[in-house]
Amino acid sequence: MARERLIVIGGVAAGLSAASEARRHNRWMEIRVYEKGPDISYSNCGLPYYIEGLVPDADSLRIHSPEFFHAERDIDVFTHHEVIEISTSCRRVTMLAPGSAPEEVPYDRLVIATGAEPAPAEIEGLSLEGVFNVNTLQSTIALKRYLDSADVRRAVIVGGGYIGLEMAEALKTPERSVTLLERGANLFEAADAEIVEVIRQELARNGVEVLTGAKVLALVGDAHRGGARDQRGTVRRVHSESGSFDADCVVLATGVRPRVKIAADAGIELGAGGAVAVNEYQETSAAGVFAAGDCADALNLVSGRRTYVPLGTTANKQGRVAGENAAGGRARFAGIVGTAVVKVFGLEVARTGLSAEEAAQAGLRTAEAVVRAAARARYLGGQDILVKLIADRSTGRLLGAQMVGPEGVAKRIDVLATALHARLTAEQVYQLDLSYAPPFSSVWDPTLIAARQLLHALK
Amino acid sequence: MARERLIVIGGVAAGLSAASEARRHNRWMEIRVYEKGPDISYSNCGLPYYIEGLVPDADSLRIHSPEFFHAERDIDVFTHHEVIEISTSCRRVTMLAPGSAPEEVPYDRLVIATGAEPAPAEIEGLSLEGVFNVNTLQSTIALKRYLDSADVRRAVIVGGGYIGLEMAEALKTPERSVTLLERGANLFEAADAEIVEVIRQELARNGVEVLTGAKVLALVGDAHRGGARDQRGTVRRVHSESGSFDADCVVLATGVRPRVKIAADAGIELGAGGAVAVNEYQETSAAGVFAAGDCADALNLVSGRRTYVPLGTTANKQGRVAGENAAGGRARFAGIVGTAVVKVFGLEVARTGLSAEEAAQAGLRTAEAVVRAAARARYLGGQDILVKLIADRSTGRLLGAQMVGPEGVAKRIDVLATALHARLTAEQVYQLDLSYAPPFSSVWDPTLIAARQLLHALK
Repeated sequence: MARERLIVIGGVAAGLSAASEARRHNRWMEIRVYEKGPDISYSNCGLPYYIEGLVPDADSLRIHSPEFFHAERDIDVFTHHEVIEISTSCRRVTMLAPGSAPEEVPYDRLVIATGAEPAPAEIEGLSLEGVFNVNTLQSTIALKRYLDSADVRRAVIVGGGYIGLEMAEALKTPERSVTLLERGANLFEAADAEIVEVIRQELARNGVEVLTGAKVLALVGDAHRGGARDQRGTVRRVHSESGSFDADCVVLATGVRPRVKIAADAGIELGAGGAVAVNEYQETSAAGVFAAGDCADALNLVSGRRTYVPLGTTANKQGRVAGENAAGGRARFAGIVGTAVVKVFGLEVARTGLSAEEAAQAGLRTAEAVVRAAARARYLGGQDILVKLIADRSTGRLLGAQMVGPEGVAKRIDVLATALHARLTAEQVYQLDLSYAPPFSSVWDPTLIAARQLLHALK
Repeated sequence: MARERLIVIGGVAAGLSAASEARRHNRWMEIRVYEKGPDISYSNCGLPYYIEGLVPDADSLRIHSPEFFHAERDIDVFTHHEVIEISTSCRRVTMLAPGSAPEEVPYDRLVIATGAEPAPAEIEGLSLEGVFNVNTLQSTIALKRYLDSADVRRAVIVGGGYIGLEMAEALKTPERSVTLLERGANLFEAADAEIVEVIRQELARNGVEVLTGAKVLALVGDAHRGGARDQRGTVRRVHSESGSFDADCVVLATGVRPRVKIAADAGIELGAGGAVAVNEYQETSAAGVFAAGDCADALNLVSGRRTYVPLGTTANKQGRVAGENAAGGRARFAGIVGTAVVKVFGLEVARTGLSAEEAAQAGLRTAEAVVRAAARARYLGGQDILVKLIADRSTGRLLGAQMVGPEGVAKRIDVLATALHARLTAEQVYQLDLSYAPPFSSVWDPTLIAARQLLHALK
């Protein structure tokens, strides 16, 4: 009897989590991973730190090799193998390997883990030299090489989300100016105005120029000869709705969208944000086909709605669930609450749940509290952090939290993420028995101070 | 019409929280605080850092003065005023001020916040010079003065709990040996063996000698002339069941007990650990009498039993509840889950809920997981921490957690404290959407790795 075959499309976080988990649950299944690019199993989230030079070489970001997966987990990982078509009715994929004709490969179970791709930007001049995406290891290595070889004095970042902020820190040096252009009215839309203001100040303090409402229209190269714009040479200037800027290097951080073409072409249903629609078992609309990671949607447990929030944590978790279920199990991915953290120079910025704007969009009436409190004892040098909590005015239930400050933010947000999972009220958050010792907290943890303020706001 | 009078006995954390909260809820009430010692409103938990020299002067640990309370909060704080008797039937206290005859003062509401006192140690020679408690600002200032004036080369700490561990770090210098003697079989009984072993190694690495099963029998001074032991002069030697040790200084950290004599004499009911029995409103058995802080018991939400766990956080919270209710409100203190954290040299040590031994004592069958995982990305220098989770074998409910490591422990334990409040199961903990960015966590937070292991142990 032939072994059942699992095919996984995509060899980064979700795909390899799926393959590994499938193997843990099924010793006999044949497991193949097709990755269209040259790299597998690396830390995408570590890429800004490689640019910054904190990670000495790109290999430090690689986790496992195809050889490892073959030898240790009996998983066959193929790089440069692109799946170009899925037939769910025939349960086969069409795969394109270098130098070969397209090959049809049957599957019993399929996991789609194709990830995300840069959202298309309507900007002229994207093919100029010195213009980079930073969404893959290869594109980031290319940027790093460019930085090391060319004399990049003026970098422009397009987009003020997580990646844009991380890249601002990564690119800024005493010798290099960094300008961040955000097309929207606000930087970092994941957080509310109070938090964003602190981020703005930190960027300014570190010499990063920030412009909002600055939609980028065109990049212009040094081969440009007046008249008609052409796309030759190296980027030298950025034209935006808020003015023009000199640039030796442009980094595009304009967001991503789910890479779903082959899934959509196969008739697999799409959901939130255009991602592959999945249920809590990571099942798609097609029998035997699962999806996980940055190409799939997820349930937001706070709003109760399916959303698209591509993050590494979710990718790994969904991958495991898809893998276990593809191997005959029945694991469940409960959902997300929207927790994220980002380092911006000396700041930790974190959020979970719904922002005030997201809550308003969901039609919820809210009460809010914003407090500034010491992350740990001031007499030991503890510094203030800003904490914002948002609750449902009618029920008192916590809806979201945001924090920013020089220390003690990243894991503190997790307390509130846990509270969101448990649907705690502001009163229940205020009652939490949180740890205290002077080197680590104040006797009233900032979270509790904010919760008390929130209780007043709810009255 | 006379103003109603609130008397608060005790002017540190619980007492002043009570007085302040009473004022917030009642503008008209007369509020008096009687403190028998010279100091009010200081950070008890900061005392070890004053000894260590991290807090430059003791005044940094003072929070507010009696003048502040008078001017800002219309609260009259009396130091050196000792309440020596309570009559609950007549609603009055007998108060002793310096140079005056005992005075009877009527109250309408009373808050007992007398704190804790060193548990009596059956040790000879406690009145020798060079022997110190560290449970008040004054006793700690005395120790600091002694350390600054005498040439203390050999310090012995009696007791291996939180204070003993903090004092080991505070006292150790390159020139000064520190020996820690614990009478029990284990150091730091708040944690299980795996965690304690890491603490032991850290103490050894920092040159602190630790002996367990080392009950101290006698301290001997330099005026000792053979034959009968006397108690004159300065301490020079410590005799314990595990041998004798030279010492220029002895710090007693043998634990505390609730200071309840006047409450007990007044016929007020005592509860867990001999502390004043209170309900969730901080009411005692006597009408109009509340108790809060280190002299009161508290409900452990995990075991469902009342317990005695004197900690600053609980004192402040209970104080507020007692104060609000003494002022006519109806606030509630939900209870504790037993969260605590302590710094031991380069280690953060944290715990919440029940330890394995406490769970066993409560008659619970448990499953456990112990994992070692990186607190943040290894390629950014992240170090491993040890995480232990304990769950109820029959229900899967989380019962407790312990962590130890060089970073990222203190606030991470709060996630599990929150999970305990919400009565989450191991599966629900595994599903938590915790924050991730390489500078702050691993993509699988150590908590989630431990939760997964715990799920396996529960199978």
